[in-house]
Amino acid sequence: MSLVCLADFRAHAQELLCKSTWDYIDGGADDSFSRDENIAAFKRIRLRPRFLRDVSEVDTRTTIQGQEISAPICIAPTGFHCLTWPDGEMSTARAAQAAAICYITSTYASCTLEDIVSAAPRGLRWFQLYAQPDRLLTKQLVQRAESLGFQALVITVDVPVPGNRRHDVRNNLDLKTNLLLKDLRSPKERYSTPHLQMTPIDPSMCWNDLSWFQSITQLPIILKGILTKEDAELAVRHNVQGIIVSNHGGRQLDGVAASKMLISQQEKMNHPTEE
Amino acid sequence: MSLVCLADFRAHAQELLCKSTWDYIDGGADDSFSRDENIAAFKRIRLRPRFLRDVSEVDTRTTIQGQEISAPICIAPTGFHCLTWPDGEMSTARAAQAAAICYITSTYASCTLEDIVSAAPRGLRWFQLYAQPDRLLTKQLVQRAESLGFQALVITVDVPVPGNRRHDVRNNLDLKTNLLLKDLRSPKERYSTPHLQMTPIDPSMCWNDLSWFQSITQLPIILKGILTKEDAELAVRHNVQGIIVSNHGGRQLDGVAASKMLISQQEKMNHPTEE
Amino acid sequence: MSLVCLADFRAHAQELLCKSTWDYIDGGADDSFSRDENIAAFKRIRLRPRFLRDVSEVDTRTTIQGQEISAPICIAPTGFHCLTWPDGEMSTARAAQAAAICYITSTYASCTLEDIVSAAPRGLRWFQLYAQPDRLLTKQLVQRAESLGFQALVITVDVPVPGNRRHDVRNNLDLKTNLLLKDLRSPKERYSTPHLQMTPIDPSMCWNDLSWFQSITQLPIILKGILTKEDAELAVRHNVQGIIVSNHGGRQLDGVAASKMLISQQEKMNHPTEE
Amino acid sequence: MSLVCLADFRAHAQELLCKSTWDYIDGGADDSFSRDENIAAFKRIRLRPRFLRDVSEVDTRTTIQGQEISAPICIAPTGFHCLTWPDGEMSTARAAQAAAICYITSTYASCTLEDIVSAAPRGLRWFQLYAQPDRLLTKQLVQRAESLGFQALVITVDVPVPGNRRHDVRNNLDLKTNLLLKDLRSPKERYSTPHLQMTPIDPSMCWNDLSWFQSITQLPIILKGILTKEDAELAVRHNVQGIIVSNHGGRQLDGVAASKMLISQQEKMNHPTEE
Repeated sequence: MSLVCLADFRAHAQELLCKSTWDYIDGGADDSFSRDENIAAFKRIRLRPRFLRDVSEVDTRTTIQGQEISAPICIAPTGFHCLTWPDGEMSTARAAQAAAICYITSTYASCTLEDIVSAAPRGLRWFQLYAQPDRLLTKQLVQRAESLGFQALVITVDVPVPGNRRHDVRNNLDLKTNLLLKDLRSPKERYSTPHLQMTPIDPSMCWNDLSWFQSITQLPIILKGILTKEDAELAVRHNVQGIIVSNHGGRQLDGVAASKMLISQQEKMNHPTEE
Repeated sequence: MSLVCLADFRAHAQELLCKSTWDYIDGGADDSFSRDENIAAFKRIRLRPRFLRDVSEVDTRTTIQGQEISAPICIAPTGFHCLTWPDGEMSTARAAQAAAICYITSTYASCTLEDIVSAAPRGLRWFQLYAQPDRLLTKQLVQRAESLGFQALVITVDVPVPGNRRHDVRNNLDLKTNLLLKDLRSPKERYSTPHLQMTPIDPSMCWNDLSWFQSITQLPIILKGILTKEDAELAVRHNVQGIIVSNHGGRQLDGVAASKMLISQQEKMNHPTEE
Repeated sequence: MSLVCLADFRAHAQELLCKSTWDYIDGGADDSFSRDENIAAFKRIRLRPRFLRDVSEVDTRTTIQGQEISAPICIAPTGFHCLTWPDGEMSTARAAQAAAICYITSTYASCTLEDIVSAAPRGLRWFQLYAQPDRLLTKQLVQRAESLGFQALVITVDVPVPGNRRHDVRNNLDLKTNLLLKDLRSPKERYSTPHLQMTPIDPSMCWNDLSWFQSITQLPIILKGILTKEDAELAVRHNVQGIIVSNHGGRQLDGVAASKMLISQQEKMNHPTEE
Repeated sequence: MSLVCLADFRAHAQELLCKSTWDYIDGGADDSFSRDENIAAFKRIRLRPRFLRDVSEVDTRTTIQGQEISAPICIAPTGFHCLTWPDGEMSTARAAQAAAICYITSTYASCTLEDIVSAAPRGLRWFQLYAQPDRLLTKQLVQRAESLGFQALVITVDVPVPGNRRHDVRNNLDLKTNLLLKDLRSPKERYSTPHLQMTPIDPSMCWNDLSWFQSITQLPIILKGILTKEDAELAVRHNVQGIIVSNHGGRQLDGVAASKMLISQQEKMNHPTEE
């Protein structure tokens, strides 16, 4: 079987993975409406190609927060890569480095940040944070990422409560028993503390807490999961360096629009005459 | 089998119930267009979540006609609960009381109003009325509900003729032979009169009759089944305390819009700049 | 099997009829797009019911070209009823008389106009004409209908060439060998002339020919098949008494809009504030 | 089996052809979205027929670049007709001549231009060019077509890189080993040079190169594959004689709109009051 498109890789993965792992990766929240809408929204994009340009040489390089990448593409943060590949996030990091794009490493990586950095020392990486209710733990985690050379702090804002994923309930999925969440603790803590609970974002976190994050790190701060223009405006007012418009792959709150639609509505507002 | 969402409960019920009961509960009028549209319209709702608000404690309490409920949710009036559960509406009443929400009891409850009240004496309840052609019977029924502590009178307006439910015709469904319609008679009438015909709303009832209802009860009056802004305006002019925008679950007149669509069109009119 | 809706009758007919007859009745032209769109357009109609009106007595009577009918419903002209029922159009005429609605009899009726009139002498009937290239034959046919008491002349305008019905080609359908087209000849001609060719409307017929029709009959003239406002305006200018907006059941030119859509677009133009 | 519509011929062809040939002809690029959209867009066209016009004689003749054709229909350029019929493009040429329409012959015809001309010497033909990176080869090819009596030069602009056709990758389709690309070489070159690589359009070709084409031929130049009004305006400014709005059957860049939609949007701009 030749693997020539994403659908091929998807079918291949479904064959090889056990049901609970496949469901965890593939499933959306609740009715998976937003997950499906993400794909449908992409299909609604209409390209308007211009021809008779000299394209014998093309250059897709750009910069992101001041760093050069080979194309405007990043690997979004996702957890637990060891579920599907022995090397886990170390392989992901190597691939990103080889492609010269940015890899946003998840708080719930199944490899330690140290191992990920060692695997691909020249790669550009950002660190995605699920802010923990324990402020000290959060601070140590951010500063450890910063000292390891991660170039930005991506704070996920759309998980005040975990998404309601029915398939994980049906499968009795318990990621804690399958995986050691290594990265919430420094290497020396790893064997001295009991297993950590996988915790959601601190549900009390609010806009005013951003100044605390700005006080503990020099890294640019990116908010991930913004879905409204009102929140985008608040992000500007709170001096963050960027936002990631995302519905978490449709895995958090079902019923939100596809990110693509949000962006094109904004475009409509800015360029009404081009419609 | 774990029951983690409504679809699970629905499949479970279909397995356990006999065909004619299932069809009676699940089926819409005619082509079931409006029934299906009700569900489709919900899927078209797009949530616009705001993040970085402190949600460590949330409070969904509100009031309805002056009474506190734990969340803006009521149990809509539906008849014949004994078809699917031995305790019938007594169980429904207990559940509503436990959840601290309002239970709107149907004229066609299969338990007496007295038994329903006894089952959950502290629950908030409204009484849904199918106005009978016999005015005296209607008056006795309303006043009996009022004296039993029901807090509002919900008059259904969208059944001038019964909905055309093909499946019930095909199944030869005859609810009269299956169920004693206890609530149209007071407990003492129960064994002294022959079985009642299940009758539709009085088809001659019109806006001017509302003053008669207002003269026989102190309860706030809510009109259920309003589907046009013209009728909503008439409701205001006739001094009713509320309306319920509903297409009767798509079980009455097929071809009407989903209630959700009606409300969002109204929102559009009121907040045109937010679109 | 209980027959409680049109879909039931349709399934029943498909069971009983031979394939070529079923296909002839059920099929549309070309891709049957317009046929299917006719049904889909009906489903898109949203009713806006008003409630709390006294509907204990309702009266749907109205008049059409000055004649009273019990409801604003007519039986559209369709040919060859003997294909599906022994009595053919005589039964149709009896049903229309019993229901007190108007029956528009087709030029391609499989019973003679005389037999149809005898079967239901008190019924209201209009005569639908496929204008024949032979003017004399056309004139005799119109005047014969008029003298038999038909109350209006419905001239079909949307068959300058026969619709392209693939199923009839595949089935080698030949209506001429199956049916004696009795009505194109007067009773005395019936046995003296050879079988007639089933001919389409005269393709040279145009707006200016309407005055000729107006000169040979006192009947009101209705044009059937008008699909554009431009042609509707021309119809007014040529002093016809009415038009029937119809796409011929999607059996003539595939790709035209459903009649319902045409009408509602017109309504939009006339009542823009009601949308 | 009677072949009465395109769908019949399509099913018939799928039966007779080997899978890789069928896939090559039938498949679109990537997800085949644009290919499917081409068909869907045609179904969205609504005809607005006008009736009561004299259509006893109709004349669909028109001219294209000054030449008369029997109807405004051309055969679009497609390659490798020998894959599906022994005579290949010679049969196509005969059919076009018999129908008196224009046949646009592809650079990748599987018959030589000379054989095609011989097969139907009186037919109107245009030559479609994939400009080769080798300018001399390109010039010889254009001038050979001109001297053979082709009446216009259709330069394809939408293949700066070959379309990504997954099925061809899966089928290991190699057209070079199946077919001698005869037309890129003059007859005398045919046996003296090794097989040619099938090459895409020169990716460096741009608007300024059009003057070079205009210098090597007297033929009118038509650009095929224009998809934006910006490029259409540039075409006018560069003095080409025409454009063909086409998305290459959805076989090049997936995600572009159907050509029909592009045209109707333009119509909307030009005739806004007719909507």
